[in-house]
Amino acid sequence: MNDESPVVELTPEECWELLGEHEFGRLAFTVVDEQHITPINYAVDRDALGNQTLLFRTAPGAKLLAVEIGAEVAFEIDDFAGETAVSVVVRGHARHLGEDEEHRAETLPLRPWVGTPKYDVVEIVPAEVTGRRFRLDRPWLTMRPSG
Amino acid sequence: MNDESPVVELTPEECWELLGEHEFGRLAFTVVDEQHITPINYAVDRDALGNQTLLFRTAPGAKLLAVEIGAEVAFEIDDFAGETAVSVVVRGHARHLGEDEEHRAETLPLRPWVGTPKYDVVEIVPAEVTGRRFRLDRPWLTMRPSG
Repeated sequence: MNDESPVVELTPEECWELLGEHEFGRLAFTVVDEQHITPINYAVDRDALGNQTLLFRTAPGAKLLAVEIGAEVAFEIDDFAGETAVSVVVRGHARHLGEDEEHRAETLPLRPWVGTPKYDVVEIVPAEVTGRRFRLDRPWLTMRPSG
Repeated sequence: MNDESPVVELTPEECWELLGEHEFGRLAFTVVDEQHITPINYAVDRDALGNQTLLFRTAPGAKLLAVEIGAEVAFEIDDFAGETAVSVVVRGHARHLGEDEEHRAETLPLRPWVGTPKYDVVEIVPAEVTGRRFRLDRPWLTMRPSG
């Protein structure tokens, strides 16, 4: 990042590194023309060929399972540290894993933060992964009220 | 929150209080069947009747302006503190404010964190505001690797 641009595009490698370091993000999806967004815990899965996808667990009956196979979704993580923020967005489609594939979630650090039962595993198959690093300009954080 | 339920629904008042305390969230929207999600800075606006909406700034040419008037959007904020997390979701429609209304943004603490020009003001008119408080169960944060 140079001094001239407050926003820098991340490389795909940087995006996947950030995705691997986090475990919490937000999933955006549409059900019968209704726009939804919900926080989820996720983990990155990687197959023998190096293809990477995201897995998360959900509960039977959750709205997400109303999403048809192949439905378009978008997923975001973000992070702040001092004067820099990063945001990574994965766009792709959601796929409800069958019983023969659910074991993939068991070998990952896929750790729901909330202790409600979640038996279904959903995969986000990426079509596009993009990320940006922002140089933050928030003088009010160090300003004191005058007067 | 009691010990029995790891997830508690927030009241609308609690949701608006949290929305007022934050200034950063993620907006989910659809453009020509493509699902998008993007981080935004926002502020809560309140009219003389007490009706509350969210305002944010964006740049000419941004994808969001491709959203037709009245398009469904969803917006989320979340926060963690110790063993508790909260998430608030506003579902509603996006409205690009005309020049005669843009002044509404000027009296709010609507402070973009990134110094790129953003001349357009968009309002999110809420149809539904929901929030949840989660009791987190993350024993691995205090566990040490064995062996």
